[in-house]
Amino acid sequence: MQFKARIIDIEAGRHEIAINEQEAKQLDVELMDRVKVKRIGKEVTAIVTFSKTHVWNGEVEIFSETAAELNLNNGDYVEIQATSRPQSLDFIKKKLDKQIIQENEINSIISDLMQERLSDVELSVFISAIYSNGLTMEETISLTNAIYNSGDKLQFEGMAISEHGIGGVAGDRVSMLIVPIIASLGLKIPKTATRAISSASGTADCMEVLASVSFNSTEIKKIVEKTNGCIVWGGAINIATADDKLIRIRRPLRLDPESLLLSSIIAKKKAEGATHILLDIPAGKGSKVETVEEARNLAKNFRILGTKMNLNLDVIITDGSNPVSNSVGPLLEAKTVLEELENKNHSTLSEKSLLMSARILQMVKGINLEDGYRIAKQQLFTGKAHEKFMEIIEAQNGKKIESSELQPGEFHTVIKSKKEGRVAHVSSSGISKICRFLGAPEDKKAGMKIKVKAGENINEDQELVEMFSSSKQKLDDAINQFDKNPMIEIEEIIIE
Amino acid sequence: MQFKARIIDIEAGRHEIAINEQEAKQLDVELMDRVKVKRIGKEVTAIVTFSKTHVWNGEVEIFSETAAELNLNNGDYVEIQATSRPQSLDFIKKKLDKQIIQENEINSIISDLMQERLSDVELSVFISAIYSNGLTMEETISLTNAIYNSGDKLQFEGMAISEHGIGGVAGDRVSMLIVPIIASLGLKIPKTATRAISSASGTADCMEVLASVSFNSTEIKKIVEKTNGCIVWGGAINIATADDKLIRIRRPLRLDPESLLLSSIIAKKKAEGATHILLDIPAGKGSKVETVEEARNLAKNFRILGTKMNLNLDVIITDGSNPVSNSVGPLLEAKTVLEELENKNHSTLSEKSLLMSARILQMVKGINLEDGYRIAKQQLFTGKAHEKFMEIIEAQNGKKIESSELQPGEFHTVIKSKKEGRVAHVSSSGISKICRFLGAPEDKKAGMKIKVKAGENINEDQELVEMFSSSKQKLDDAINQFDKNPMIEIEEIIIE
Repeated sequence: MQFKARIIDIEAGRHEIAINEQEAKQLDVELMDRVKVKRIGKEVTAIVTFSKTHVWNGEVEIFSETAAELNLNNGDYVEIQATSRPQSLDFIKKKLDKQIIQENEINSIISDLMQERLSDVELSVFISAIYSNGLTMEETISLTNAIYNSGDKLQFEGMAISEHGIGGVAGDRVSMLIVPIIASLGLKIPKTATRAISSASGTADCMEVLASVSFNSTEIKKIVEKTNGCIVWGGAINIATADDKLIRIRRPLRLDPESLLLSSIIAKKKAEGATHILLDIPAGKGSKVETVEEARNLAKNFRILGTKMNLNLDVIITDGSNPVSNSVGPLLEAKTVLEELENKNHSTLSEKSLLMSARILQMVKGINLEDGYRIAKQQLFTGKAHEKFMEIIEAQNGKKIESSELQPGEFHTVIKSKKEGRVAHVSSSGISKICRFLGAPEDKKAGMKIKVKAGENINEDQELVEMFSSSKQKLDDAINQFDKNPMIEIEEIIIE
Repeated sequence: MQFKARIIDIEAGRHEIAINEQEAKQLDVELMDRVKVKRIGKEVTAIVTFSKTHVWNGEVEIFSETAAELNLNNGDYVEIQATSRPQSLDFIKKKLDKQIIQENEINSIISDLMQERLSDVELSVFISAIYSNGLTMEETISLTNAIYNSGDKLQFEGMAISEHGIGGVAGDRVSMLIVPIIASLGLKIPKTATRAISSASGTADCMEVLASVSFNSTEIKKIVEKTNGCIVWGGAINIATADDKLIRIRRPLRLDPESLLLSSIIAKKKAEGATHILLDIPAGKGSKVETVEEARNLAKNFRILGTKMNLNLDVIITDGSNPVSNSVGPLLEAKTVLEELENKNHSTLSEKSLLMSARILQMVKGINLEDGYRIAKQQLFTGKAHEKFMEIIEAQNGKKIESSELQPGEFHTVIKSKKEGRVAHVSSSGISKICRFLGAPEDKKAGMKIKVKAGENINEDQELVEMFSSSKQKLDDAINQFDKNPMIEIEEIIIE
């Protein structure tokens, strides 16, 4: 049937159209069914919404992304056809029926996902089914391969090292130290990092304080050929695209089935061209994995999957209950990283980075950990890592910079404790929340310095945190929120 | 935060707004999270969509239903607040984790469903969890009660009988015979029927050929007080509203977990005021329940749930592999019903109606089936059922009418067999598909007469069906579709 297009200014994040319910019936489509929308050689599959009163017969409302893909203007005519229910829905149902899905069936699901032939509620069924009934290792391997094949692939000559933390810990900017340490030893270590999702700053946000982070595959290869390393934003390249489409639904559902975590990370790292991977699983109160036992089990499965995917993979479990660095926010974290590289200051951040670098050297060179640690430390303490970092910054269109040149937001305040007691816990998620009120990560200069540690005894009026923002209003909002969000738990020693 | 409203002409079937992704971050809400939208004493919970390019800072796009609920005009300001994640999501997750959910937890889920606090993808998780992990009878009872309590309730003085088929069989208009037969015996039998969902005609569509079917609770009570019966559209009253909200998601997913089927039907019938219920489960190829064994198991669970809900309930299993009547489409079915009541014709339709009436009389009067059948037959053959039906039609604002006055669509054609052979199967879903091409159920005069039966041997050129439509174009479309949709399977006797 032919319909006259009315373009609607909404980005649904997927192809969507709205038609009159009666015409939908004539097309034999139900709410949330899919249709083909065609116009002069172009065709997309879109999900159907009904519109009872607002769409006149013969009109279709087309969401802006869909219109753009079809090169459509208001008033243009499009052909709309019912399309058969994708067979992959039967395979999704198989998993809900607790059956095993075969490789070709998983490929069919991912292929339909890539072609936007699955609606959000259908993807929600897929994720629920995997969460509730699990995937076997065989299924996980098939899914990892399907996700790996769903996007572009980077490739480097010879060995390429990847270091990745599964996240959730504030101030965990080890990549920005590990990359220059390892690259300064002549080993290739391209790092594709993420931006903050719910935290105050991702590695990509932080690196962006010092250099550009959006590069295409060709540019990334050039940077790595020149410097052996890079710290770029993964979102700028189309790597393992199916994973992003699954995460779009997983995130609001907050369903993180282990098999999806496994396949997501391994597929991405492999597509990024990694041959050797060091994975960091932070464990502890407030992080993604709460217990060491859970972390061990996850590590075991990462090792199996890595081997099956022909990767050299090592996994470490680290303390995830405390922030890695006391400075949080893009600029403040970049400043801390520079101070460590300039040898002005050494903290948990450099210690963790050195230990991880040692593990990487053990994996790729076959040397023992003590030697690896010694070598890594030498690169850091002699300034070779710093020199390499400046090279990388320049290759990424940044300028040489010193830590002292980085100044956080002009509006700042110190918050003091209202009582004396013992600091029971410093919460990464609490820190993120306050930092977002301060304006991070959009405001790179927003963030905080944390002045106490878990376990420490503190007095009334002792300084807890110093907060920074480029906006007076946002600083005030954050001060307001501080009392409501218990980012620092203080236990009173004498209760009565 | 205050936002300026821009109203978007889309009916999403739920409350939805679109804001700039960066402002969403500042509000601390993610895609598909929920927010409170407030304006002068009014407040709704809405689901968040992002809009990267089309919404300017400080603007919010509000979907038309949401705007209407808030009495909002373009350019008005609204307050938008993040709202906490509803606790019921934890209970939904419990079911996905294969745990038992308690009565208060089920009530919390249904309460959030009613307040639109659950997004479509979240409801999809709930339905998936129930489908995959099942509900215990205890959980099913809690869910049935929660759905029962989610809408209005009808109540009749004394006993009220309900007859209900779980559907899927073409031409199954037994209610339109059972209601007048039983009502003519002085027993109360209010029938709330559905319109066609994917079929050619629901009982409500068919009754609407003869009378009005949209009445509120008070009007229904009056009609039943006067005539002892009614055949009205259930959609006009707010009965078991939560069920409709679940069906909205279940339908596109095509997930029909047994516990939802049980709770849906029992909650609706109880809310409609029934004290005695006869359920018909059609079983066989092409119907909802494919085997008699499945039907028996379903019947057993209906009986248990009915008893727990303090209902008198009887269940019968009938042949669901063949159409009940050879005429399909709102007007043609109404015509067949009238012919049966006028004693001009008797077919499977009246036979099934008499057998079911006998079961009802056995249940409510305690008499044996033979006596029940004899009594029911007497009401039909003496014209008392016909007289009662005319009374009901008049009470529902219709006029007395004879079957001969009903004429189907003026455009019609006979389709003949292209080969000789044996009719293996006449498919109810195939019939529905062709009838919808003819224009049913919107075009009441669209439909078909089926001229062959399963098992019959037919010759080349023998008449298969006669199709009717009010539109020449639609008739042509349907003729076109006939070859593509195998509604009549013919097996050749001699293959080579």
